[in-house]
Amino acid sequence: MSEKISQTDSSAVLFKRKGGTEYQRTCRLDTTHAQSVLHVVGTSLKANLNRSAPPGSKFFSVKCTANVKYSVSPTPGETSHLSPLPLSGNSVLLISMSHASQEEAEEKLSVRYYDKKKKDLGNAVLHLTAVEISLDVDADRDGVVEKNNPNKESWKWGPNGHGAILLVNCDSEKTQDKTPDSEEVRISRVSDLKDMSLMVLRTKGPAQLPKGYKLTMHISQGDAESVRVFRARSSEVVKSSLKKLFSAFVKDYPLVLSSEVLSQEVPYLGGSGEMNFYVEGLRFPDKDFDGLISINLSLLEPISEGIPETPIFTDKVVFRVSPWIMTPNTLQPLEVFVCSTSDNYQFLKGMKNLVTKNGCKLKVCHEYMNRGDRWMQDELEFGYIDSPHHNFPVVLDSPRDGALDDFPYDVLLGPDFGYVTRVARRRDVSSLDSFGNLEVSPPVTVNGKSYPLGRILIGVAFPTATKGRNMTKVVQDFLWAQKVQEPVALFSDWLHVGHIDEFMTFVPAPDRKGFRLLLASPDAGYKIFRGLHNDGHGQAKMFDGVKNEDPVTVDDILSDETLRAENNYVQSCIDWNRDVLKSELGLDDDDIIDLPILFKLLGEEDEYRAVAYYPDMVNMIVLGKDLGIPKPFGPKVNGRCALEAEMCSLMEGLGLNCTFIDDFASYHKLLGEVHCGSNVRRKPFDFKWWKIEL
Amino acid sequence: MSEKISQTDSSAVLFKRKGGTEYQRTCRLDTTHAQSVLHVVGTSLKANLNRSAPPGSKFFSVKCTANVKYSVSPTPGETSHLSPLPLSGNSVLLISMSHASQEEAEEKLSVRYYDKKKKDLGNAVLHLTAVEISLDVDADRDGVVEKNNPNKESWKWGPNGHGAILLVNCDSEKTQDKTPDSEEVRISRVSDLKDMSLMVLRTKGPAQLPKGYKLTMHISQGDAESVRVFRARSSEVVKSSLKKLFSAFVKDYPLVLSSEVLSQEVPYLGGSGEMNFYVEGLRFPDKDFDGLISINLSLLEPISEGIPETPIFTDKVVFRVSPWIMTPNTLQPLEVFVCSTSDNYQFLKGMKNLVTKNGCKLKVCHEYMNRGDRWMQDELEFGYIDSPHHNFPVVLDSPRDGALDDFPYDVLLGPDFGYVTRVARRRDVSSLDSFGNLEVSPPVTVNGKSYPLGRILIGVAFPTATKGRNMTKVVQDFLWAQKVQEPVALFSDWLHVGHIDEFMTFVPAPDRKGFRLLLASPDAGYKIFRGLHNDGHGQAKMFDGVKNEDPVTVDDILSDETLRAENNYVQSCIDWNRDVLKSELGLDDDDIIDLPILFKLLGEEDEYRAVAYYPDMVNMIVLGKDLGIPKPFGPKVNGRCALEAEMCSLMEGLGLNCTFIDDFASYHKLLGEVHCGSNVRRKPFDFKWWKIEL
Repeated sequence: MSEKISQTDSSAVLFKRKGGTEYQRTCRLDTTHAQSVLHVVGTSLKANLNRSAPPGSKFFSVKCTANVKYSVSPTPGETSHLSPLPLSGNSVLLISMSHASQEEAEEKLSVRYYDKKKKDLGNAVLHLTAVEISLDVDADRDGVVEKNNPNKESWKWGPNGHGAILLVNCDSEKTQDKTPDSEEVRISRVSDLKDMSLMVLRTKGPAQLPKGYKLTMHISQGDAESVRVFRARSSEVVKSSLKKLFSAFVKDYPLVLSSEVLSQEVPYLGGSGEMNFYVEGLRFPDKDFDGLISINLSLLEPISEGIPETPIFTDKVVFRVSPWIMTPNTLQPLEVFVCSTSDNYQFLKGMKNLVTKNGCKLKVCHEYMNRGDRWMQDELEFGYIDSPHHNFPVVLDSPRDGALDDFPYDVLLGPDFGYVTRVARRRDVSSLDSFGNLEVSPPVTVNGKSYPLGRILIGVAFPTATKGRNMTKVVQDFLWAQKVQEPVALFSDWLHVGHIDEFMTFVPAPDRKGFRLLLASPDAGYKIFRGLHNDGHGQAKMFDGVKNEDPVTVDDILSDETLRAENNYVQSCIDWNRDVLKSELGLDDDDIIDLPILFKLLGEEDEYRAVAYYPDMVNMIVLGKDLGIPKPFGPKVNGRCALEAEMCSLMEGLGLNCTFIDDFASYHKLLGEVHCGSNVRRKPFDFKWWKIEL
Repeated sequence: MSEKISQTDSSAVLFKRKGGTEYQRTCRLDTTHAQSVLHVVGTSLKANLNRSAPPGSKFFSVKCTANVKYSVSPTPGETSHLSPLPLSGNSVLLISMSHASQEEAEEKLSVRYYDKKKKDLGNAVLHLTAVEISLDVDADRDGVVEKNNPNKESWKWGPNGHGAILLVNCDSEKTQDKTPDSEEVRISRVSDLKDMSLMVLRTKGPAQLPKGYKLTMHISQGDAESVRVFRARSSEVVKSSLKKLFSAFVKDYPLVLSSEVLSQEVPYLGGSGEMNFYVEGLRFPDKDFDGLISINLSLLEPISEGIPETPIFTDKVVFRVSPWIMTPNTLQPLEVFVCSTSDNYQFLKGMKNLVTKNGCKLKVCHEYMNRGDRWMQDELEFGYIDSPHHNFPVVLDSPRDGALDDFPYDVLLGPDFGYVTRVARRRDVSSLDSFGNLEVSPPVTVNGKSYPLGRILIGVAFPTATKGRNMTKVVQDFLWAQKVQEPVALFSDWLHVGHIDEFMTFVPAPDRKGFRLLLASPDAGYKIFRGLHNDGHGQAKMFDGVKNEDPVTVDDILSDETLRAENNYVQSCIDWNRDVLKSELGLDDDDIIDLPILFKLLGEEDEYRAVAYYPDMVNMIVLGKDLGIPKPFGPKVNGRCALEAEMCSLMEGLGLNCTFIDDFASYHKLLGEVHCGSNVRRKPFDFKWWKIEL
């Protein structure tokens, strides 16, 4: 072993950690026994020279082997090379090594102490072994696990942000006897690995760690509710296991950390080793979980029997769980879901035509599954989760729990199709918990603040109301906790059914902000009817030819003072929402189109709430440029429905095609329309949620 | 009523709200009925001119009374004054009034519509009443409730921050049958008002609101767990009530909002009115509560029977609840608390002398209350809460719940002395939950980040330990949630008792950072003993003259290899904490003083943990420049204890006076010392917590 004597080495490479602070570990010197020290490259050892000096020591000198660097603090004044340095009360020795050892105790450093006459008083010897340890993740979000990213310990939003990403493993690799994978006790299929985030433990050093040292991976009790960590037995096994039956998986991917095991030893591979871990998210952000998870790896030093090992080095990585993200009407439709019932043939035919024209897929939920519940919009909301390595759709199951209740779990949950729900007490659930009352705007910018994934919209009662219906708290908490589509609360309790999709929707537009907000407007409706009257069509009939429905003339409507008063009230409710939407979505009046729709009030124990007077055209399905609109059965002028004509004229300017679908008997009379009876799964945003500036 | 016709008025004062957005309310025009509109000064009314225009309208003109301002958008091109303006599809009228009306419907605005030949088609009339409404708090933190602070709706930390402050009303105005005031159903004493934050509702307008309109104050369900609002019946009553008996208080200060009542009507005073409200905090920040609370005031417009009133204006104020703040050793002591037991006369005498010298007060907890539990440090921690209008001390009661358990509630709780605790399951409580394991550093700056109130320090087990004791989660969550003294976790599970005050304390210093960190150091201890041996004092005896204790010589100690090995381990545990403290408090080695203290290990079912070998001098009481230090009974040289001499020499350089207190039999032998057996209430920081940059 070649040795050299070196003075203060200002070129000593002290790797920086934690915002510029070097990670320094105090190490003891002992002139009576030689010490063995395991050193982690990138940190430094700090020894108080005075503390363990023999009594009477006034000078010291340091010797070390080639790969050891050291420095003395305070920096000695001008002293000749090779001569002992004066020892002061606060003399400190900083030791570091720049690369891993190939063998144990390969390097050495010694400190010799002298009295005032420079007589030798003793020698403290350190036998040094260096290892490199790095727990690595994809902190730069490019889909590759880079080595020792300096930002891996923190998480930052935005285009210049950093931090690894985790998916909730809420899909099911199984198609039968299924349950979300995160609830399975083990990994059941190789394909499940892609739903997890790869984490790599990179080590370099001698074939084995010095006796008694070990590596331990650990998480906090709080984080253990939200994450599990599996390990690949070895990189060789990973490759060969692809050919094996899945029954071999428990052996090949042992569970390392979970709520049952917060800390577990992991193997040290020796030489240059890489061990793969698979990190699985278990829960979505919520009121009590901000979505951030830390995983730690510590190197433990043995002390003796009955005394806990001391962590002498800890590396940490941070993940954020992907939020659940909703998709607005402006995104490309992929699949349209509707129910088939004994009485909705006419509606289904209309929907099939529309979907065929548009080119997306129609998925029909048959009666054995829907059990007569036709409100496909209300039982579930489609969304997705996203990471640099993988993404998949996730259905949010409403606590509404109608007869369609089993559909999201039994039919939708599957490979690469996730499932999440929130459970509320029965008495806390109201009609406002149906997801016709949960929508999302297209991307908007409000007073300079950008919402590139839009904003979630829900309907509630006025906060001033002493009795009113609301969306249940557990669902509201969930929606707010996702953060990336900050919700806006609208007022929908004025409606009998109480869903915001009864008075608003968004359609794509080639100009302005890329969309228009459509609002139901009784004033716009009365304007049409007054115009018809003035033009001599006062006797034109609504509902003409509709089975079991008495026709009503334009003049009948205009002369009904009660209906007019009720619609004034409805207009004021919609105007209240209009003001909120303009303010919270940053819209101008020119971004909004008023649709001619009348409402009427239904009484219920002295409480009056609104329903649509004729099919509520704003409750439409939006498939790209194709709109499927409830056929209004309005008064005809020259054989053409005046309401359809107005609707077409308003939409054609935006390049949109209107298809009117007869939902009168099977939906409208049951207080819903086309939108309530359908649901659309859409393509995710191209924009990545982690690039949002929060 | 004088009327004038005015064109687009660009000088219209539109008050700005919510980051620059004007608060605009859509209002409907009707040519068939005159409308009455209640307007709130500082907002504007927006009317779509086209929506309610009679069919065939092509032009319009606007007339209004003197105090009404309006503008038309889009701004009309060059048109002569007085001539009707062209009506376009998106013509909008913005209306505002700059001050309150003295009478209802005092002002008027009308819009007249014309056809293309400028023939009159109809007139829409608005009768306008203006009110001024402002819910006010002390958002600029000067102790005075200013009018309509533009920042009252938000909360910002720091020297340039803003936002009102609330105290948890956790003291008790009663001295008998007491309970924290926040748990009383009503205000019981006038003096309780000063523990609450004043909130003022300022209104101006006609003697009464137009029929059916009302003011409602409301909070969210979530906030209702954390706040109550009381009202003074009127400003006159407030003054006169000071002379009344407290039995009149329920009438004089009715409860407005609570978890039972989320929304309640409040009176409108008429003319220029100010109504006082008293806002009371109910809970401290915690894991599920960030400390922020909103209170809203809405003006409701009547619609008709059976239909909820519509809020047409909402004002909002935000409060943050004061955190619980700990006081470090560097703050001035006010009161020292100790227990009197059957066997601690010697100790009490020493403490009395020390406290008398220092000039603060000694409070003795007698045996009927302490029931033999002498560990005053462990049962409670003194802190305080602070606001611009008031502050008082608050004791945090530990879940330790020893025989001293009743002391904090029964003795300390009282007028201007608050009480808070956290309840843990019995099986989750360990010795690490005693508050000898909860300390706070003096103010520090770490890598440029300043902690002007210091940082909380607690002791835990290594996160890598599979079995270890910890401070219970509910207390840790509470401490972290206070935010202003961000905690640091140290490793204390290596100690038998497991408290950080067994190896560390802080003393004031005239230089550097204003303090020194004192650490127990076996190495420093061995250095003293080796020095004594070298100087020929190897036969000097420890514990000389201590009753029932066998003396031990310096050479006995130096030749005990087991003791040396145990102390090497202890030094490595303390060094581990030293590294963390340096890094987390931004300390240099020169900020730390090593005290000569030896430990020994006690075995317990194959687990070995450390206790002090002789009285643990670091476990001292710090009263300004006076230190009360456990008398170590070290080896004597020329009649003087070498350990006391070293201690004095180390402390004298800082201008500190050492008083050694004999706690050997009554504390040391029971595994505690002076600090464990005492507690100090200190003066709050001059620095205000809301000025921290977080």
